[in-house]
Amino acid sequence: MSQPADHSKKTLESYGWTSVPHDQSVLLKDISPWDPVPYEVTDIRIPDTELAKKVKEYAQERLPEEVYNHSMRVYLYGASIAQKHLPSFLPSLETYYLTSLLHDIGTTQENLHATLLSFEFYGGYLALDVLKEYGASREQAESVAEAIIRHQDLGVVGTITIVGQLIQLATLFDNAGKNPTLISKHTIESVVAAYPRKQWSGCFAQTIEEELTLKPWAHSSAIPRFAETVAGNKLMEPWDR
Amino acid sequence: MSQPADHSKKTLESYGWTSVPHDQSVLLKDISPWDPVPYEVTDIRIPDTELAKKVKEYAQERLPEEVYNHSMRVYLYGASIAQKHLPSFLPSLETYYLTSLLHDIGTTQENLHATLLSFEFYGGYLALDVLKEYGASREQAESVAEAIIRHQDLGVVGTITIVGQLIQLATLFDNAGKNPTLISKHTIESVVAAYPRKQWSGCFAQTIEEELTLKPWAHSSAIPRFAETVAGNKLMEPWDR
Repeated sequence: MSQPADHSKKTLESYGWTSVPHDQSVLLKDISPWDPVPYEVTDIRIPDTELAKKVKEYAQERLPEEVYNHSMRVYLYGASIAQKHLPSFLPSLETYYLTSLLHDIGTTQENLHATLLSFEFYGGYLALDVLKEYGASREQAESVAEAIIRHQDLGVVGTITIVGQLIQLATLFDNAGKNPTLISKHTIESVVAAYPRKQWSGCFAQTIEEELTLKPWAHSSAIPRFAETVAGNKLMEPWDR
Repeated sequence: MSQPADHSKKTLESYGWTSVPHDQSVLLKDISPWDPVPYEVTDIRIPDTELAKKVKEYAQERLPEEVYNHSMRVYLYGASIAQKHLPSFLPSLETYYLTSLLHDIGTTQENLHATLLSFEFYGGYLALDVLKEYGASREQAESVAEAIIRHQDLGVVGTITIVGQLIQLATLFDNAGKNPTLISKHTIESVVAAYPRKQWSGCFAQTIEEELTLKPWAHSSAIPRFAETVAGNKLMEPWDR
């Protein structure tokens, strides 16, 4: 990268380089348990910069449809959560969008078999390269990579970036039905109508099992009863066709 | 990398791609609490392949003396632990040596300031690139990267590679005096005579604090009371000059 490092506070913030508690119960402690705002998908702005469009095309070309749909739902759920509950997260939504599109890029058949690395570490590395190639600043590319590398690093100690926390909140919501009252049922209905789950629960559980069969050392093993939890996602059952 | 993927079982094992429990209490449960074998540094073979020599030179040129000494102690302690307690770990000692030399490469002043990524993630990616440049196979380079990326990922659930587990055991021993009976006092004396600590406890505590000041979101924050624990390393106090 030849551009000079831009570490101005505003730039870092716009890329999500703000530290927040990793513990979601601390982060969400003042939030009302009910979301009375039934956002429609059409209420949620999808970033449309040149970079955003290129990365969307990259993801859509490579991800199987169910993984692409999951990635878009993760963006929409994350944006809803930020809009309603965590407005300080809003300035970094473009970086969050790039992160959502690429967070599971390591799970494609091609990428699972291209490396012995845990999928999220390889995915973070890939994202860094792709984003730099598409002209993203180093600071933005690294924010996406940091979040992808840590997106299965669940924990309650210490801190994480805004983008890292949002990808965890939204993936846990879509994959495991965690923190169900963050988003209204109406919003879920609108989001899954636009990006159907296509039996995502079973599908993603299978991907986890496939990775751990190929790579029994992988970091996915650090989440207790991971595949079982994903397959048994009760919250999303009504829409899991 | 243009060489074909070599996923033969023997090759994977020699690079440390074997899954072991992450929980050290499970891994070490059958091990006698006393190590009657007082290894000398001269009893422990240091890998001397062309690759090993190039990486040693790379590390020695870039790491401050106290970090280089720590890296060599981590190798020697890890090799002692494998020799005495975990002989199935022995075939991967060359890969472990490369990992030891590079595991803290992200903490140099140059590297801390070159990135916004958590130091171990940046270090893992740097190691991947350097090793490939020096002619390591993809499988070996990735084993080193996987271990470096996870070397501060302490936990008890799931699995990790042999090399990943060994770097955790040895760094926890040198940095925090954990599992003190794995290595005899005589071996510690021999190792620190060859590679003095140079007040490593205070030095590394300062590095952790420096990273978290520059990057309050960093993954180092996930270890509870990290700097405090390192600074207060009672086991190594007699040799911490």
